[in-house]
Amino acid sequence: MIEVRPVLFIVGILLTTLAVAMVLPAVVDLAAGNPEWQVFLASAGLTMFVGIGLVLMTRSAEIVISVRQAFVLTTMSWVSLTMFAALPFTFTSLDLSYTDAFFEAMSGITTTGSTVIVGLDRAPPGILLWRALLQWLGGIGIVVMAVAVLPMLRVGGMQLFRTESSDRSEKVLPRATQIAGAIGSIYLLFTLVCAAAYWLAGMSGFDAVAHAMTTIATGGFSTSDQSLRSFDNPTVEWVAVTFMLLGSLPFVLYLQVARGRPMALFGDSQVRWFLGVVIVVAAIVALLFALSSDIATGRAIRLAVFNTISVITGTGYATAAFDNWGGFAVTIFFLAMFIGGCAGSTTCGIKIFRFQVLYATATSHMKRLLQPHGVFIPYYNRRPITDEVALSVMSFFFFYVFVFVVLAVLLGVLGLDFLTALSGAATAISNVGPGLGPIIGPEGTFSTLPSGAKWVLSAGMLLGRLELFTVLVMFAPAFWRA
Amino acid sequence: MIEVRPVLFIVGILLTTLAVAMVLPAVVDLAAGNPEWQVFLASAGLTMFVGIGLVLMTRSAEIVISVRQAFVLTTMSWVSLTMFAALPFTFTSLDLSYTDAFFEAMSGITTTGSTVIVGLDRAPPGILLWRALLQWLGGIGIVVMAVAVLPMLRVGGMQLFRTESSDRSEKVLPRATQIAGAIGSIYLLFTLVCAAAYWLAGMSGFDAVAHAMTTIATGGFSTSDQSLRSFDNPTVEWVAVTFMLLGSLPFVLYLQVARGRPMALFGDSQVRWFLGVVIVVAAIVALLFALSSDIATGRAIRLAVFNTISVITGTGYATAAFDNWGGFAVTIFFLAMFIGGCAGSTTCGIKIFRFQVLYATATSHMKRLLQPHGVFIPYYNRRPITDEVALSVMSFFFFYVFVFVVLAVLLGVLGLDFLTALSGAATAISNVGPGLGPIIGPEGTFSTLPSGAKWVLSAGMLLGRLELFTVLVMFAPAFWRA
Repeated sequence: MIEVRPVLFIVGILLTTLAVAMVLPAVVDLAAGNPEWQVFLASAGLTMFVGIGLVLMTRSAEIVISVRQAFVLTTMSWVSLTMFAALPFTFTSLDLSYTDAFFEAMSGITTTGSTVIVGLDRAPPGILLWRALLQWLGGIGIVVMAVAVLPMLRVGGMQLFRTESSDRSEKVLPRATQIAGAIGSIYLLFTLVCAAAYWLAGMSGFDAVAHAMTTIATGGFSTSDQSLRSFDNPTVEWVAVTFMLLGSLPFVLYLQVARGRPMALFGDSQVRWFLGVVIVVAAIVALLFALSSDIATGRAIRLAVFNTISVITGTGYATAAFDNWGGFAVTIFFLAMFIGGCAGSTTCGIKIFRFQVLYATATSHMKRLLQPHGVFIPYYNRRPITDEVALSVMSFFFFYVFVFVVLAVLLGVLGLDFLTALSGAATAISNVGPGLGPIIGPEGTFSTLPSGAKWVLSAGMLLGRLELFTVLVMFAPAFWRA
Repeated sequence: MIEVRPVLFIVGILLTTLAVAMVLPAVVDLAAGNPEWQVFLASAGLTMFVGIGLVLMTRSAEIVISVRQAFVLTTMSWVSLTMFAALPFTFTSLDLSYTDAFFEAMSGITTTGSTVIVGLDRAPPGILLWRALLQWLGGIGIVVMAVAVLPMLRVGGMQLFRTESSDRSEKVLPRATQIAGAIGSIYLLFTLVCAAAYWLAGMSGFDAVAHAMTTIATGGFSTSDQSLRSFDNPTVEWVAVTFMLLGSLPFVLYLQVARGRPMALFGDSQVRWFLGVVIVVAAIVALLFALSSDIATGRAIRLAVFNTISVITGTGYATAAFDNWGGFAVTIFFLAMFIGGCAGSTTCGIKIFRFQVLYATATSHMKRLLQPHGVFIPYYNRRPITDEVALSVMSFFFFYVFVFVVLAVLLGVLGLDFLTALSGAATAISNVGPGLGPIIGPEGTFSTLPSGAKWVLSAGMLLGRLELFTVLVMFAPAFWRA
């Protein structure tokens, strides 16, 4: 049996934090004279009641978290935060079903950015702020988790990012607190700078803050149904590109830069590969789109670069219906969804370091085919990749494809067409946002999908966000034995 | 430098064999009073001239093949056989471009079954027999290669199927000859029984023989544009299902059955898993199709089971436009293309044993997450999977996905739509036959695709058929050094 008291204690603390966050949209709605501030306050009250209740019921002298408990904690905290974060969506004037509200909350907290809400431009400020806040909190949550928890759990090769102190599990909590503080400051600083830049570029103060929160979190929720198209402002788009890319790099490296090692960022092989991939894919899309469309070349390049970077980083802002650009665009954007950013960033997807490990391992295997008795050691970031890490990353890749296939088949069985099913599964597991095609593409929403599909997609978002194994491991019978 | 003399010697022998095979359609066309017998005879003459020339120029006292030479030999023999096998297609009344002819020959010899020919029902018997013969020869060629060559090359986990004697590379040729003899007899026997069964079911003698050759080879070329729909005969379809399945099992096991160990077949875990996968997928498709269509339940089940088995085994016969059955069907058939049959059969695809190894490795990795210091050994067919085999299979899986992605992007860039690009890449790399959608689907052909796409697909068929590494390894700079 697993001792759940410390798990519930931390879930209680997280729910209490969420409740405090709910006060912000209440204040904004109150200031705007919108009666929905009561919904946020009531939701905050209920969430805080449950949160504090859990804390009081389970507090003990000392919190020690085992590996097994850390798995349960991670999954349970994301699910329970989503359950309560969905409350305001159900009770406001949007009048969403709980399925829709849960989907929207999951899409927010996992920084996905898929939406079921139509009419954002007329929505009250409270609800818009709540969506932005969820992505912002989800973004910092995932960075802290990737730095402090996942390396200890050795999920999908994350042991590559272990530091000495993360080895001892009893140190998890103090370390998490310490890192959360340092990285949180950087995250907050980036958000403020991004908001200021958006504001200087011409956004209203509210839009600037809301978009800054969803940009640095590579989330992609907007305050308009038209996403960033509604601004049609090149400066806004370049600000977005800059901070989407900043949100896709490993936040620990910013700590090193802040500590006076400015080259730490570009000395990292993952960062270099990520930027290389972004440049190459964006250049290919820009070239093909500029050649094949009637749009002026400059504008075509601007559209291509923005939307490609938005999809690769899993942000999901759109400034064009890029799935109407022809077969090459649909195919490339579909596949680009899987890429993702760096480990320890706010992005999801397979992530660059895994491609590096997969490629290094597969090519060293190829060399071994030629010289069966030769010794070929694959390297990542100038350090040898052990068989354990290689198998770990490859298992992750296999399960990623496997979960994608299961999601796609389920969506197909639920009646979705091929493009909607495949791109829906991809956008969910990789936390991108829009899918492709007329229904869930950059000009559509997820609102018309059947309820079953929304639950399947919510599960996909959670699985992708928590790096699969963190959730899947609990389905292993061995997990509950011993 | 690689000594190519022994390689060219064997290629010469293979080309001479191909030339002899070309005499058969010449005889058939002559008997049918079709002047195209001259085309086949001329092609045979040219091919034999080159083949015998190579043999004479390169013969030496002894043939010893190194691992490196075996890679070159494998790729070079399939490419050069395709180049010459394409000759009759260019010069007959079909008047195909060399691109089309090469595509058709590659599709034949790799047992894919994609076609660029429209009007099969009116085509002369020689050309129909030539297409069937190519698949039949390709089928036995791949079985012999999988048993005698690939385990030695340790490609994609094929070292699992090593026997004691296949370890010493100098034994390759005698062993290949010996196994080719034994397996060839079984292959011939199956073909004869299949032809007889088709004939008894109501096919003409010619159709029975042609279809028997493409059924056991899980190739899928038919003598009609309508594929097996043209017969609309349940008995014909059950004969096809039986022999497609027989063609998908490991042929070495038939040797053991013939040697008096009848249970060898069903004691093999790959065979049990394969049959399990076929039954489960066919049952799901049958259920969903029967529920969603207006067709009578019995007929719906018959259509669903036949087409599902045809796609999983990579045969590619069709008795319905199964891509019109709705989103579930397109998604499931697309993904089913990747499955394939057993190692050492005539099928292509990722193959069942690799899924078993991937799954066993990934789940034992998951157990290790829970008990970092525990020892968990994955098993395949009651034998432990070494890290080397696991990495080998996982590298294969990674490159399979990688090559699929490259093919799909290239097809997208060449202007194909999403469904055509993705299903085209899948059907090529897995040697299935038809793709999905109105253009290359079960009711279409590949004839209208741009030339570039046909070359991309031909490369995909070759890569898939030769288990990727056999071809890819030659692109490694290390291959040409030392």
